Amino acid sequence: MEVITLAHGSGGEETYKLIKNVFLRYFNNDILKEQGDSAILDMIKGKVAVTTDSFVVDPLFFKGGDIGKLSICGTVNDLCVSGATPLYISAGFILEEGLELKDLEKIVKSMADTANKIGVKIVTGDTKVVQSGKGHKVYINTTGIGYIEKNNYQLNIKEIKEGDAIIISGTIGDHGTSIINERENLDIESGLKSDCAALNELTKAIMDTSNEIRVMRDPTRGGLANTLKELVSTSGKSMEIWQKDIPIRGDVRSFCDLLGFDPLYMANEGKLICIVSNKDAHKVLNVIKSNPLGREGAIIGKVLDDGKSKLYLKTYIGGTKVLGMLQGELIPRIC
Amino acid sequence: MEVITLAHGSGGEETYKLIKNVFLRYFNNDILKEQGDSAILDMIKGKVAVTTDSFVVDPLFFKGGDIGKLSICGTVNDLCVSGATPLYISAGFILEEGLELKDLEKIVKSMADTANKIGVKIVTGDTKVVQSGKGHKVYINTTGIGYIEKNNYQLNIKEIKEGDAIIISGTIGDHGTSIINERENLDIESGLKSDCAALNELTKAIMDTSNEIRVMRDPTRGGLANTLKELVSTSGKSMEIWQKDIPIRGDVRSFCDLLGFDPLYMANEGKLICIVSNKDAHKVLNVIKSNPLGREGAIIGKVLDDGKSKLYLKTYIGGTKVLGMLQGELIPRIC
Repeated sequence: MEVITLAHGSGGEETYKLIKNVFLRYFNNDILKEQGDSAILDMIKGKVAVTTDSFVVDPLFFKGGDIGKLSICGTVNDLCVSGATPLYISAGFILEEGLELKDLEKIVKSMADTANKIGVKIVTGDTKVVQSGKGHKVYINTTGIGYIEKNNYQLNIKEIKEGDAIIISGTIGDHGTSIINERENLDIESGLKSDCAALNELTKAIMDTSNEIRVMRDPTRGGLANTLKELVSTSGKSMEIWQKDIPIRGDVRSFCDLLGFDPLYMANEGKLICIVSNKDAHKVLNVIKSNPLGREGAIIGKVLDDGKSKLYLKTYIGGTKVLGMLQGELIPRIC
Repeated sequence: MEVITLAHGSGGEETYKLIKNVFLRYFNNDILKEQGDSAILDMIKGKVAVTTDSFVVDPLFFKGGDIGKLSICGTVNDLCVSGATPLYISAGFILEEGLELKDLEKIVKSMADTANKIGVKIVTGDTKVVQSGKGHKVYINTTGIGYIEKNNYQLNIKEIKEGDAIIISGTIGDHGTSIINERENLDIESGLKSDCAALNELTKAIMDTSNEIRVMRDPTRGGLANTLKELVSTSGKSMEIWQKDIPIRGDVRSFCDLLGFDPLYMANEGKLICIVSNKDAHKVLNVIKSNPLGREGAIIGKVLDDGKSKLYLKTYIGGTKVLGMLQGELIPRIC
């Protein structure tokens, strides 16, 4: 069994071999091959979008994905919901001494496959190795660079207006529940599966359909409720969402009921929230539903202007509950 | 004593407070303040350079710098030696549960001060928290974006020619020896101090002086010898360096002698190697020496074309030694 040693992080012979045999082998493109201190990219014709995320998910491999796929999709999605077309990704690895080389290779292959499918290039990278007990197998940082086409209007939270519709592109809580189930070996609901996916085609279709999209977000850590709460805080508007319309898988719901989790706050990794004018809401929903990742999309609420900047949940029984931000730690290392 | 808890990584209330009270407080700029899923940058007028680095240095604070300063200088330097002007930085933090908040604040302040001095903006970030024993206080990834002015010729390793001069901008081994001395509490040489510094002014001055710069590198992990060995491998040329001309501080030399380290392979964090035509070598050296970071700069060798692609050391006593790549692990977590 070949494992990662501290020598793989020395910058010397072993680092060189690791780069050649693993990273360059899978992340194969002309820019990366140059191996300068920086990757040199052609001029980007438009505004530039940039986002960064570190991935520390435990376990590394889970139903529906792995840390490699997640590290590409998560960063690509942050670019896409900003209205940008993803172009380039950097990858920084913090490996723990003792990590099995075949696990690293599986992860790197998964990153490469995901990036290829999306059409983004991994252009620069870095590898550090920390002693056993000073990390956990592998942590990955990806930073993504995209561009905003000149003729794209800019999504802007300040454009959110009373009456705007709130759309979610599918069922919520799939990623969070799947990770807990596997990490804790609960095996309560064997159907649970992460929704880990890249949203680039979906966001493009949405942007092509309407020029009254106010804002898009991917509700990852903190889930649907926390993401909407942030929008409410920043926009100054209030929002109400309708419990009966929020799509949740049966097994996600029973898992949450059993363990006392609220699916509204559970992480998603392949869903988006779209705030759009009431006029264009159904047109956008139809486009979302026609995409394989958006089959269960739904209009789940609307924007209010009551001057209170609150997030309301209309419950099944017709009551109204005010939702707060996630407090404390629901579950660590979900992404 | 306030410490980082898992809740600071939840994406909820506590994360929000940490961002507001620490990150936004110090990394204060208009782009970051927007807090979208991506930072939106104005169009970059030229080729784009991008580089990424994770920093896992132990200890966090050392003579001459800290992990915060290092995380900015290291990434800025990778941009600069590629001939790029640094513009933007992303910052991804992996915090270990139990980290003292005041230490994080010191580090963040140090990053902000360093970035301000250089004139780069920290435009987007991310925070993850891992359980105690699954990390080590704080790991930082920075990704840097710069641009290459249209009228700048492109540095190119393939332009390295027989007779070119090899210049180092100052003494070698200062960073590596300082880190070991402090981490291991050796206290052998109390004058040891990291050379951690941003090279942006130095590289700009060099590029303004000559258009026969073939390539620049910052010899970090693996040191001077390993960096030259990489250039030798990639260029296909050979190089010889002259032991008597390589600047090394007396205390660095005695420290290495005592512990059996070779300063040629010790990390630097504020030095650059410049390969330049023989014609322009002295002009470039003078410019380097007139910069506070380059006072002890020296021409230390030249490029050969013996078809062997080797790195030779001409020793004090007139012998010739072939230098290899760093093998095994000299010292972990030096940067």
